[in-house]
Amino acid sequence: MARRIHAPGYFFVDPLARIEKLGPLMSEPRFLTASQCKDIAGRFGTPVYVYDEAGLKRSARKVLDFPRPFGFTGRYAMKACSNAAILQVFHQMGLEMDASSGFEARRAMRAGIPAQHISLSAQEFPNDFVDLLRAGISINACSLKQLRALGEALPGNRVGLRINPGLGSGSSHKTNVGGPSSSFGIWHERLPEAKEIIGRFDLEVFRIHTHIGSGSDPAVWQKSALLTLGQVEGFPAATHLNLGGGFKVGRMREEVGTDLSEVGVPIKAALEDFARLTGRKLHLEIEPGTFLVANAGCLLASVEDKTTTGDEGHVFLKLDAGMSDILRPTLYAAQQPMTVVPLAKKSGQEMESVIVVGHCCESGDLLTPDPSDPVRLKERSLVRAEIGDLMVIDGAGAYCAAMQAKNYNSFPEAPEALLRESGEITLIRKRQTLDQIVQNEVPL
Amino acid sequence: MARRIHAPGYFFVDPLARIEKLGPLMSEPRFLTASQCKDIAGRFGTPVYVYDEAGLKRSARKVLDFPRPFGFTGRYAMKACSNAAILQVFHQMGLEMDASSGFEARRAMRAGIPAQHISLSAQEFPNDFVDLLRAGISINACSLKQLRALGEALPGNRVGLRINPGLGSGSSHKTNVGGPSSSFGIWHERLPEAKEIIGRFDLEVFRIHTHIGSGSDPAVWQKSALLTLGQVEGFPAATHLNLGGGFKVGRMREEVGTDLSEVGVPIKAALEDFARLTGRKLHLEIEPGTFLVANAGCLLASVEDKTTTGDEGHVFLKLDAGMSDILRPTLYAAQQPMTVVPLAKKSGQEMESVIVVGHCCESGDLLTPDPSDPVRLKERSLVRAEIGDLMVIDGAGAYCAAMQAKNYNSFPEAPEALLRESGEITLIRKRQTLDQIVQNEVPL
Repeated sequence: MARRIHAPGYFFVDPLARIEKLGPLMSEPRFLTASQCKDIAGRFGTPVYVYDEAGLKRSARKVLDFPRPFGFTGRYAMKACSNAAILQVFHQMGLEMDASSGFEARRAMRAGIPAQHISLSAQEFPNDFVDLLRAGISINACSLKQLRALGEALPGNRVGLRINPGLGSGSSHKTNVGGPSSSFGIWHERLPEAKEIIGRFDLEVFRIHTHIGSGSDPAVWQKSALLTLGQVEGFPAATHLNLGGGFKVGRMREEVGTDLSEVGVPIKAALEDFARLTGRKLHLEIEPGTFLVANAGCLLASVEDKTTTGDEGHVFLKLDAGMSDILRPTLYAAQQPMTVVPLAKKSGQEMESVIVVGHCCESGDLLTPDPSDPVRLKERSLVRAEIGDLMVIDGAGAYCAAMQAKNYNSFPEAPEALLRESGEITLIRKRQTLDQIVQNEVPL
Repeated sequence: MARRIHAPGYFFVDPLARIEKLGPLMSEPRFLTASQCKDIAGRFGTPVYVYDEAGLKRSARKVLDFPRPFGFTGRYAMKACSNAAILQVFHQMGLEMDASSGFEARRAMRAGIPAQHISLSAQEFPNDFVDLLRAGISINACSLKQLRALGEALPGNRVGLRINPGLGSGSSHKTNVGGPSSSFGIWHERLPEAKEIIGRFDLEVFRIHTHIGSGSDPAVWQKSALLTLGQVEGFPAATHLNLGGGFKVGRMREEVGTDLSEVGVPIKAALEDFARLTGRKLHLEIEPGTFLVANAGCLLASVEDKTTTGDEGHVFLKLDAGMSDILRPTLYAAQQPMTVVPLAKKSGQEMESVIVVGHCCESGDLLTPDPSDPVRLKERSLVRAEIGDLMVIDGAGAYCAAMQAKNYNSFPEAPEALLRESGEITLIRKRQTLDQIVQNEVPL
């Protein structure tokens, strides 16, 4: 499943007005207490990613409760956060896995996920796809080449089809996961070729998968379901409708997230209508990533330095983390909630307007970008911080530990910890060492 | 040293017109022959980074020949490409090392670089700075906090000072390495505080370091030198002038790179004037990264798939590499030269206008962005490629292996190879395994 890029302005109607209101609201981290922050920093050091088991389970339950008239499978798009412990929590809850590469499929199996609970939809088709299929994973053929390879290797096999139905949620000149600017899936006009391959190798198309975009608007999801149902009509043996796409999550307090119980209603109705018209009761599948983990994870960092560029300039907080740990602000101008956890004694809760930057020697390593431009500075009002205080960057469960400029400036991969429902804090990844960073280097 | 972000439009006056002319020019990779590409792909698989020892040495010689009236040190900003073999090649040529973190300083020492040849200028001050100093590295204090920590731990010690002289090369609202929008260095208005700390701890300021921007314009570099000399006047014991900043490199054929022998002339003159006026003959230091490695490295990938979205859409080449290996196009809309190396028999050298995308399930994993916007597609005219052909992405020596979305979609870190001057091809980093990706995970 490809994820829609968060283009500037995607999240915000009036970002400036909204962000300026933020500071006073964000005086507490989303799920950690100040005391837990201190405990975690003391035990594991900073920076460290922390996940919230209760939050993971809450979002899993929302996915599992998605409205459906017939059968249902909820899958976790594991590229959002790929740690084995996270996969295990979701597996125990009843979610299956959506893998975006052969490596991810293998990784899930290593984490104890039964192969039968793993579906692969990949841009790069793994060389060992026959072994993966024989182990029990299912595959969505995402191109004619993939379909042909599957047919040649395993004629008569079951296969899913990822179709690009010709519509996406963005402009046609921008990167997208659907429409003519998307390289994902089999272009709808080439379905005759796909059907020829399917016929030639006697393949059984049991699932139709599309991925048109992301968002929180029930009307968009209804349209997506209807378009996909239109494709299902062309494949009479298909029993599964697989709706790709991410459900928007509000990371910042004022952002609106997706209500799955609302989004699902028109989808359920569409499946019921389809059943009435065709007699086919389709099994529904959705595959969220961000929705499941974004707000159940944070990056806990330290304020490593504090500088100023005078009255015409800014006050800068420098963290001991940065784009080597969290790339979304640099890449997408993504807005992340931040909370200062003072370790020194403070007089009151004075606010200060600051720029927060990362630890890399890179001018773009900016954690408070303007939402319209990742290289434009945007001051954030935070509780006044001093060197040595902690900083919680919330909304960092998705595409942070899994997608960062790892080892840039030779900074090691940060550890990950899980706040269990019991209140216990468990290390689920150790901090990388410098030895490990260079372990594959071969001296001249 | 921070590196200037390559803002849209930075490289190109008229990008569309220029790129469209490119295809026919780029029929050969910059330093590999087709036969070498096939050999490397056969031995190490793809994707693989390849570096050109002869090219590394050519650029090193240009740095070492930089005009200077008195002493000179050329340093390699090792964050650009941190493999031990690259450091060793430059060390053998007589370059020293510029480290941007304590980890980089340790990494250089592990690679056999004498500590005396390593200078550290870091946003995040390493906890073990006393050990690093005692080992022999030199440090530029980049903030008042760093200066104070140095003074407290080692009163009477020698120290360099990174100063932000109040001017940068970009807009004052955008990220920058100099001026009021930059968090790098000690703000010039706070030098009285710095001098108080220096006096209190009897520190000896032997070097003044600034980093105002990057580029190829001799006038900008002259201004940078004059500004820094203005700061040196305030530190009578300083013997070294350390000019940070990158020298622009032309990655695409039509781009103009920097002629160091030209840029250096006004800097040399400024140092001579300063000596005449003050009697102080300053040792000059420069610290390029991109200049030394950008065009001496490429990423060799395979065309993994080829799809189309019809007459209104595009032809897409999908590589077995992407933002997990080369992040610059996704992050900066950076333009990289690309050359198809056909493996199948071809009739002639027909051209095709294509979009090149990476292997990640991410719509932003686009290798041919429009220079104005990393999410806007821009077709590139390339020799017609088929699945299984090789693709050389040139200009990938700097900020590619060292700064990528490593392990995103669980793709392993690619290996690195060095084309020796002898023509021999040596592996200098092995491909990462899935076991290594998860080696620090702790099962629940």
